[in-house]
Amino acid sequence: MEAFFEQVISVKWAPGKEAVDIIDQTLLPGKIKRIQLKQKEEIWEAIQSLRVRGAPAIGVMAAYGMAVMAQNIQTEDYEFFCREYKKLSDYLASSRPTAVNLTWALNRLWAFVKASRGRPLSEIKKQLFVEAEAIREEDVAISRTIGRIGFDLLKDLKKEDRPVGILTHCNAGTLATAKYGTATAPMYIALEEGWSGDQMHVYCDETRPLLQGIRLTSFELKNAGIKTTVQCDNMASVLMAQGKIDIIFVGCDRVARNGDAANKIGTNTLAILAGHYKVPFYVCAPSSTIDMATATGDGIPIEIRDPDEITDMWYRERMAPPDMDVFNPAFDVTSHTLISGIITERGLCRAPFDQAFETIGL
Amino acid sequence: MEAFFEQVISVKWAPGKEAVDIIDQTLLPGKIKRIQLKQKEEIWEAIQSLRVRGAPAIGVMAAYGMAVMAQNIQTEDYEFFCREYKKLSDYLASSRPTAVNLTWALNRLWAFVKASRGRPLSEIKKQLFVEAEAIREEDVAISRTIGRIGFDLLKDLKKEDRPVGILTHCNAGTLATAKYGTATAPMYIALEEGWSGDQMHVYCDETRPLLQGIRLTSFELKNAGIKTTVQCDNMASVLMAQGKIDIIFVGCDRVARNGDAANKIGTNTLAILAGHYKVPFYVCAPSSTIDMATATGDGIPIEIRDPDEITDMWYRERMAPPDMDVFNPAFDVTSHTLISGIITERGLCRAPFDQAFETIGL
Repeated sequence: MEAFFEQVISVKWAPGKEAVDIIDQTLLPGKIKRIQLKQKEEIWEAIQSLRVRGAPAIGVMAAYGMAVMAQNIQTEDYEFFCREYKKLSDYLASSRPTAVNLTWALNRLWAFVKASRGRPLSEIKKQLFVEAEAIREEDVAISRTIGRIGFDLLKDLKKEDRPVGILTHCNAGTLATAKYGTATAPMYIALEEGWSGDQMHVYCDETRPLLQGIRLTSFELKNAGIKTTVQCDNMASVLMAQGKIDIIFVGCDRVARNGDAANKIGTNTLAILAGHYKVPFYVCAPSSTIDMATATGDGIPIEIRDPDEITDMWYRERMAPPDMDVFNPAFDVTSHTLISGIITERGLCRAPFDQAFETIGL
Repeated sequence: MEAFFEQVISVKWAPGKEAVDIIDQTLLPGKIKRIQLKQKEEIWEAIQSLRVRGAPAIGVMAAYGMAVMAQNIQTEDYEFFCREYKKLSDYLASSRPTAVNLTWALNRLWAFVKASRGRPLSEIKKQLFVEAEAIREEDVAISRTIGRIGFDLLKDLKKEDRPVGILTHCNAGTLATAKYGTATAPMYIALEEGWSGDQMHVYCDETRPLLQGIRLTSFELKNAGIKTTVQCDNMASVLMAQGKIDIIFVGCDRVARNGDAANKIGTNTLAILAGHYKVPFYVCAPSSTIDMATATGDGIPIEIRDPDEITDMWYRERMAPPDMDVFNPAFDVTSHTLISGIITERGLCRAPFDQAFETIGL
């Protein structure tokens, strides 16, 4: 397993820590290429052009990136260091302004720098590596705990005669996080616990329009040795009708207080299908994504994205008439009534979700 | 309207009838090009390479094609004519061996030739045009009647303040038939009845993997002046959740005696979503597609197609890891319990469907 993670993990230190080492996700699945980034322009560009993507992975990238860039601030003056550091931090923040985890990680490191007044700059620079590593390790721990809870569900579904059938959507995997992913964590933990890759069969929705399921999730699961199949989003119902799906795990972007969950477009359809075919439907949600200040899913804004993602992107030639009107929401909201459980690192929450969230301290 | 149909109609006579005139569907929606076919190789290739597609359109194409090819059989001897005619007919049948309507149309014309023994060959050759035209006119009449029944449903949904929202999947339109389509017929009849294109708003699922919705249906509806939007298959639930869809019309390939309907992959998902959001869901089915010999949808075989359609076709580069396992069913079966009504040219059938089918004489 560790050898597998070494190959596909989204962001790590390059040996000796003088650079950030990433898998270039823009080349997947055609080409598996790791690159080392040292210069501020390279680090900025890697976030901006989605070589690193996925909220937790972007947070880790920002932290590692700042630790690397701070080494190059040549000064013995703390005030000067702070000014230069803040300029670099603001620069990196501009690489993807809407990425919440990017800002969060940058703020956390900047708070550390500000709190370190009086300490030797050499020590502060060294400590930035430790802080960045802590951010990564916290994410790994969150994913691992979500994975352990999900694995308990898989154990209960274990078959003698065939693999446990698992459906997932989009990429809430290793590539999007620091290590285990969220929706994929139960499967990776299963491997760590000694299951063979043939004891599970993961079906990955291709996930139109950006195809993260077929490009990324199937890539990483197959590379991990797990039996993997891809299908178009509109084929998942056939798998469920044929009894091939025992459980569904999806990630999530934001959960309202009542348990309504926003996730990649198509998730809501899966949940309705799961309800129809009586397949358990679980949302894997780090507690940081549960927003107790938002009462219901109606309060979660849905980003509408560029029509070209549907009509032109990926294709050899345009696949729609000229000037076609296109509806392209990036996310949808799944009603809490369709969710069997929300798996957080603080425990498994079941309906009524608002009470369950309070019980785990949210 | 007639000017519109002249432009996009799938198959018609070229002026003077010396050739078949088709819109080349392989070039859509990028290029609107009509071509005239005279030679047997051209006619064969047009069917084989999907320049003409859609069951009724293929039937019309086969009939027109035989009428054109028969003109070139130079003989005064009926037996010799029959041998040459049958050779050409078998040749055309080989262009797409699994297309039921192709065989059906060829058999119908061959039966006519055999029944014409004793008549002058010049008259038989002339009469083949009449038979071919009859096949086309019958299909137009079937579609028109389906459209009129569907239009009655649209009239009941008419809004003062906004267009009637209609969702459709795949291409059961003009391009797939002789004129009005099946699922699109209600909208074309609405235009003929004096509705403006803005009184309807048709949302077309792109229909992965072959994209007939975004390439073909949106093209023909937009060209007809109807307000049209495309979305990915996994976005239809958002439209329903937002109350934008008043009714769903889909085509169908085969209906079992109990009303279970096989149609393009994704239809079953739409029907389940429609049930969840309480949107009326109608199947437009020429009575020839209702198979009383098949008791339920379980008896309808589902074609599994080439993985490349999902992973490679259309794309600039492959969108899946090498050797990926792919699930690619071409059709799915929608349970009769999810269907509000099946619109045939013999009348609108509602549950219990087996009794309704008997009532209309099936």
